[in-house]
Amino acid sequence: MDASGKVVPFSFKRRETGVDDVTIKVRYCGMCHTDLHFINNDWGITMYPLVPGHEITGVVTKVGTNVSGFRPGDRVGVGCIAASCLDCDHCRRSEENYCDKVTLTYNGIFWDGTVTYGGYSDMIVAHKRFLVKIPDSLPLDAAAPLLCAGITVYSPMKQHGMLLGEAGRRLGVVGLGGLGHVAVKFGKAFGLRVTVISTSPAKEREARENLKADDFVLSTDNKQMQAMARSLDYVIDTVSAQHSLGPILELLKVNGKLVLVAAPDKPVELPSFPLIFGKRTVSGSMTGGMKETQEMMDLCGEHNITCDIELVSTDRINEALTRLARNDVRYRFVVDIAGNGSKL
Amino acid sequence: MDASGKVVPFSFKRRETGVDDVTIKVRYCGMCHTDLHFINNDWGITMYPLVPGHEITGVVTKVGTNVSGFRPGDRVGVGCIAASCLDCDHCRRSEENYCDKVTLTYNGIFWDGTVTYGGYSDMIVAHKRFLVKIPDSLPLDAAAPLLCAGITVYSPMKQHGMLLGEAGRRLGVVGLGGLGHVAVKFGKAFGLRVTVISTSPAKEREARENLKADDFVLSTDNKQMQAMARSLDYVIDTVSAQHSLGPILELLKVNGKLVLVAAPDKPVELPSFPLIFGKRTVSGSMTGGMKETQEMMDLCGEHNITCDIELVSTDRINEALTRLARNDVRYRFVVDIAGNGSKL
Repeated sequence: MDASGKVVPFSFKRRETGVDDVTIKVRYCGMCHTDLHFINNDWGITMYPLVPGHEITGVVTKVGTNVSGFRPGDRVGVGCIAASCLDCDHCRRSEENYCDKVTLTYNGIFWDGTVTYGGYSDMIVAHKRFLVKIPDSLPLDAAAPLLCAGITVYSPMKQHGMLLGEAGRRLGVVGLGGLGHVAVKFGKAFGLRVTVISTSPAKEREARENLKADDFVLSTDNKQMQAMARSLDYVIDTVSAQHSLGPILELLKVNGKLVLVAAPDKPVELPSFPLIFGKRTVSGSMTGGMKETQEMMDLCGEHNITCDIELVSTDRINEALTRLARNDVRYRFVVDIAGNGSKL
Repeated sequence: MDASGKVVPFSFKRRETGVDDVTIKVRYCGMCHTDLHFINNDWGITMYPLVPGHEITGVVTKVGTNVSGFRPGDRVGVGCIAASCLDCDHCRRSEENYCDKVTLTYNGIFWDGTVTYGGYSDMIVAHKRFLVKIPDSLPLDAAAPLLCAGITVYSPMKQHGMLLGEAGRRLGVVGLGGLGHVAVKFGKAFGLRVTVISTSPAKEREARENLKADDFVLSTDNKQMQAMARSLDYVIDTVSAQHSLGPILELLKVNGKLVLVAAPDKPVELPSFPLIFGKRTVSGSMTGGMKETQEMMDLCGEHNITCDIELVSTDRINEALTRLARNDVRYRFVVDIAGNGSKL
């Protein structure tokens, strides 16, 4: 209700199911770091009351007359986007996430002028364009974070050719959190040799044993970093703390590509020498479009990729937020909205 | 001879013409900003005595028994590279500039262990691999800076698809100096709409009238910058002063590409938001390989592209260096090594 940082119960009405709409009973909703920023009004743009949540899975309860692809009972997901113009070049290429008029799933202004409310709620109405099917092989709870954390790393991995399965390609993942651990899973599923790069020695065992990473480098250890110099084809940097890209760039081969998917508040430092001398590239990427979100979800179904999650009951959201603020989660909290445990 | 910053006469012997070598009477040598850094030992790596110069044009006087592509009398150029391993993946792809064992034209260690001496000298001996032909249509003085300034912008422009002649593509060039003015010329020659972005209002007339730039934006004027937001496909940033890439990134369309070709001493600031929200890319690039240098030179011959230069007699090199240090040159000094004026 305000910038106190505390989430409280709040009753509101959703719009009726429009002709192009799908109404969903929400089962689970992942807790993204972005939720925390909005809850606390860190960016000064929060419109209270706020209903956070953009990693939503559930079951269709009703569809509009103009909807053919979804039926009641379908297992579906809603991610970061509630609407876009549907008409610009970006929308036509299903890059709705880069549409000038994109409306986010919460704290956005919808077509009808109302503020959008997210997935920490028991039902949601979504336009048919902004919803994906969840493959039967995936549990709805562990699949939920794929709708933001998953697509955020999948989209640049695909666009930069990381998923082509070329033999011997090497990926570095900087930071082992919500985004990082999915990047490791995608990398391994698509045949990359994956190195986790972290400031925390405790992550080594997790990286190697749980996530089957091939290598681990402690970024605070110059020797380890130097031994890895010029060895990686790609790096995905998921660290939102302020940092220099210099030491990470040095790990890349000539022509190597670094993708920044986190959004540090303050500018990161980019030293020109490792960029120029290695003809390296730093790119940004923000979530993904709807077509590639469905594609990712289908691939996750085939490869059995889900997120490692900790389920949270609705009465413990505030506790989870406190832990999330200190990154005390392995690797994503998912709110059990419908109170069914992990059975669905 | 030392870090005094003053260039004085110095006599030395070059190696004899080896079987794979070409000996050249130097006619002209461009003055690159890098020369100034080495003369002053700005980077702490200068080995005195230093003979600077890596934008060298001249005429072949002698060729080794194993040289078939060049004959005495040929008009040739030598750029930044004196040697590389000739055997690694980079060398095989003619990316000699990224070879781990690259030897620069001056202040490098050659295969025989000697320190290389550059083009501020009346003759030079070059390995046949590291030399290009200068088309007859190009004057040797105004063509000299193409060997560093030219290839430095040509290489990334080619690699990032800027020269494909796609209709309606727009290029921004940040900084109008030695590199920037050639980038404008290449852009115009290859059908791009070119915007010059500069901190100096005085550059507007130069940009539009002399270089035929289509647009000019004063980067210190927020209104002008905002009017240009999300409009460019590419930006070439030639500014070596410390700066933030944020305002420049905002000028790029979604998916736009910024190439940094200057080498600021201190890290540039890279704010994550314009990078991520626009899926934009920042790449580095350092000179170019030999094959693309020849290709660029041939294209310059076809399109009549040369640098705008100011010819300097050998007794005024120090004066020119002083002016170069304060960027008082439009746009490149070229030393008239052979003392023939601009007749050759």
